[in-house]
Amino acid sequence: MRTAAIVLIGNELLSGKIQDENAAWLARRLRTLGVDLRRISVVPDDPAAITDEVRRVHRAVDHVFTSGGVGPTHDDITLETIATAFDVPLVRDAELAALIAHYFGDRLQPDHLRMADVPEGCELIRTERMPWPVYNFREIYILPGVPKIFRAKFEAIAERFACGTIHLRNLYLNADEGSIAALLRQAQAEHDVMIGSYPRFDEADFRVRITVESRTPDAVDAAVVVLLAGLSPTAVVRVDAPISDRS
Amino acid sequence: MRTAAIVLIGNELLSGKIQDENAAWLARRLRTLGVDLRRISVVPDDPAAITDEVRRVHRAVDHVFTSGGVGPTHDDITLETIATAFDVPLVRDAELAALIAHYFGDRLQPDHLRMADVPEGCELIRTERMPWPVYNFREIYILPGVPKIFRAKFEAIAERFACGTIHLRNLYLNADEGSIAALLRQAQAEHDVMIGSYPRFDEADFRVRITVESRTPDAVDAAVVVLLAGLSPTAVVRVDAPISDRS
Repeated sequence: MRTAAIVLIGNELLSGKIQDENAAWLARRLRTLGVDLRRISVVPDDPAAITDEVRRVHRAVDHVFTSGGVGPTHDDITLETIATAFDVPLVRDAELAALIAHYFGDRLQPDHLRMADVPEGCELIRTERMPWPVYNFREIYILPGVPKIFRAKFEAIAERFACGTIHLRNLYLNADEGSIAALLRQAQAEHDVMIGSYPRFDEADFRVRITVESRTPDAVDAAVVVLLAGLSPTAVVRVDAPISDRS
Repeated sequence: MRTAAIVLIGNELLSGKIQDENAAWLARRLRTLGVDLRRISVVPDDPAAITDEVRRVHRAVDHVFTSGGVGPTHDDITLETIATAFDVPLVRDAELAALIAHYFGDRLQPDHLRMADVPEGCELIRTERMPWPVYNFREIYILPGVPKIFRAKFEAIAERFACGTIHLRNLYLNADEGSIAALLRQAQAEHDVMIGSYPRFDEADFRVRITVESRTPDAVDAAVVVLLAGLSPTAVVRVDAPISDRS
């Protein structure tokens, strides 16, 4: 099993000026790859805050993904801050600098080339799918904040993170959470599963969604058997098909 | 100026099963109240992760808002975890327990009453707007994850956080970020403002949005004068009206 963390960098997310799309998207994407996402954090364009957070999550998980702060303007400080945080110099990558210079041509400004200044030791991952390389500094993948480019860069390297499947079944119930709490506790204790309970207070045709998850498909099905045995049949609105029945 | 942090608690946000609405909403709401949101974090339903994060942000900001983990089921561990994190016992609030017992009547289960077990010293804020009290333990406001209730509980106490206005003007430009980076740096250096630069690569009628913000309205207008003086007129798609012109 592999673990990951996402660090979103940008004042605009904390001031509510721009709503995050990248963490929500990557959380789902990592899930399909079987990666266990352990935390998401949003920090301002502030070197101390970025340093503190990136160092901390880097110690705790296998892969860190940052979003934002890699353009040419004054608030784009992710690359230089990570270099400082890990006490390595910022060095200009000649190949990337040439790519940038070619792309901008006559319009090239010195600030554009800041995007080629990377922490020493940074891997620049080049793939056929993506003309611009992806920065990887010690399993910190430094991605841009623009959602379209964030996704394209991640997809270019996604397969390197694949590590299995997390199986999930949902039960949609007409029941009060408090009245089933003991049953949920029992099912989780008896089988190697994680059970989640999410109440609704709206117009949906159910009042609580129960999720049963595990890397072991049989454990999911066995825990669902325990739940169904303990629930009143009238409380069950619908249940996902057993994992064992799926192709 | 007051500072704040938001801690979202829940495996469902990290697995991508449920997309956050609360942090995005509260970020905008805190902004209108003039509160400086310094970080958002998402942690799993895990006592060590919750303890670590809540303790850390509690030291760093004036107000902490948590979301999630306050229902009756096994994965609702926020209240007890915060008690442990701050080394105080969990104590049953008699008034809240009576309210819960009255609400559930014959359907009352022992698990329902877990919602009345609060960290010792926790303030239970009762208002006319909200029949259920809001938990406040040492400026950690412990809110539920269900968006409708999260919002209602925050609104019941919102006015206690009001501390001024952050003024904002947007400039929508047809310009490349790299070519204006030096100008942005200059405007920020000359005036007491924060400048943000957000490129677009889609069908919008502009290529970059520049935001100029400050608690001092004159500083915003003065910085915008610097920017407009340095930009080619053809690059300016539109600009928000001066702060000084607003009613």
